[in-house]
Amino acid sequence: MSWFEKLRGRRTGAGNRVVILSHGFGTDQDAWTSLRPWFEARFDVVSFDLAGCGPMGAESYDFERHGSMFGYADDLVELMDELGLQGCTYVGHSMSCMIGAAAASARPDLFEQIVMIGGSPRYLNDADYVGGFEQENLDQLFESMAANYQAWVAGFAPIVVGVDDREAVADFSRTLFQMRPDIALNTSRTIFESDMRQAVLRVATPVHLIQTSSDVAVPIQVGEWLAGAISNASLDIIDAAGHLPHITAPAEVIRILERRLG
Amino acid sequence: MSWFEKLRGRRTGAGNRVVILSHGFGTDQDAWTSLRPWFEARFDVVSFDLAGCGPMGAESYDFERHGSMFGYADDLVELMDELGLQGCTYVGHSMSCMIGAAAASARPDLFEQIVMIGGSPRYLNDADYVGGFEQENLDQLFESMAANYQAWVAGFAPIVVGVDDREAVADFSRTLFQMRPDIALNTSRTIFESDMRQAVLRVATPVHLIQTSSDVAVPIQVGEWLAGAISNASLDIIDAAGHLPHITAPAEVIRILERRLG
Repeated sequence: MSWFEKLRGRRTGAGNRVVILSHGFGTDQDAWTSLRPWFEARFDVVSFDLAGCGPMGAESYDFERHGSMFGYADDLVELMDELGLQGCTYVGHSMSCMIGAAAASARPDLFEQIVMIGGSPRYLNDADYVGGFEQENLDQLFESMAANYQAWVAGFAPIVVGVDDREAVADFSRTLFQMRPDIALNTSRTIFESDMRQAVLRVATPVHLIQTSSDVAVPIQVGEWLAGAISNASLDIIDAAGHLPHITAPAEVIRILERRLG
Repeated sequence: MSWFEKLRGRRTGAGNRVVILSHGFGTDQDAWTSLRPWFEARFDVVSFDLAGCGPMGAESYDFERHGSMFGYADDLVELMDELGLQGCTYVGHSMSCMIGAAAASARPDLFEQIVMIGGSPRYLNDADYVGGFEQENLDQLFESMAANYQAWVAGFAPIVVGVDDREAVADFSRTLFQMRPDIALNTSRTIFESDMRQAVLRVATPVHLIQTSSDVAVPIQVGEWLAGAISNASLDIIDAAGHLPHITAPAEVIRILERRLG
């Protein structure tokens, strides 16, 4: 089975330029629903479900391979090679920002430009680096996920959505519940304990960074760190809350994409 | 109660220019969901539910006032006057195309440009005019609506959607079921027995016509008639089927809007 099939790849839209849409933790490719018509109007659009996510998540996930961002980046590169893609626009949300960074530092030929929405190379604070989390915050998070996944989702979803948008919270909860709890736990360990700063420093592809001014997972300082670390980067801050602006503030994101992707 | 409240008006988005989104028969303002982010990225967006439609449809509908397109046009003009709007972009689908034509011929100051998606000034064939329907077709339609509304919806919705899009059929069925059957019947009589050709001839506002190449309610000849009758008109044909391209082919519609609304 090809990676395109394994990850429930979809290819829609017209246009000569290809855009790859790669969602973040706890959602699936339906996270792009509000932006999809805008992309389809000007791009050949490829989307898929990350390993572990979506209705076939349990089949696509491998605890070893997907124990680091580089495993996901391998999935992406293999999928792009299967389709014979090169010089693409890549749009990643959250963990997919770092998957894109890893793939682009290894295979710059595949990417023309990268959009990162709510990305973070490291969630733990470090000397001279604000990630926003201390180890004890993460330990608590993992513990409550393991203890009662359903209860954890009920608390986690509205905080991550960050704005009073019942439909977005309901959708995000639904896709979180769709993940097998042990896979969800392993995925969040992989994300929150990752340190992708070295990979980011190797990215030569132009990167457009987008984040909100109040994102529980990504402090403003993270966006600023990325903008400084990437040789060719822009940073747009949306004056709104939440980690999922492509879902809760799609018009703001479109405005930025129109300016940045021309 | 203001018309804005009565028709469940929503005002979203940014931008200095105002766009009014007015849906067609059997849907409500959620019909704009796929296009809304595109509009919100560049317009101050006003939408509402037509009288008789949406969850408050039974309260807003008046059998006399809404027995002609001009009654709906009065609602629109009053709502725009309440909000102090002028020189707006107006986007209408289906029956709202003719509501816009009636309003613009009476009050040209309110409109800068009009987009008509799947509009028809007359559904009945006439001498030198192809509307697509004979009186016996309409009699049959009204009869089956009156006999068993639920069964009629089950047959009507997929034909009007016109493409194999289960979600669109389910959504359209849901909003059709939401209408009180006697109101739905009176509304379809009002639409199908209307003749708005004289009102269309008086429209001086620039009009961008959009329709699909295969629309059960609107033959190609109707779009051509409108393009000929309106002094300043463009006509774009989407090479797809269905009466609801803003729902089933939003990327195609966006491509046209970007070209026409600049």
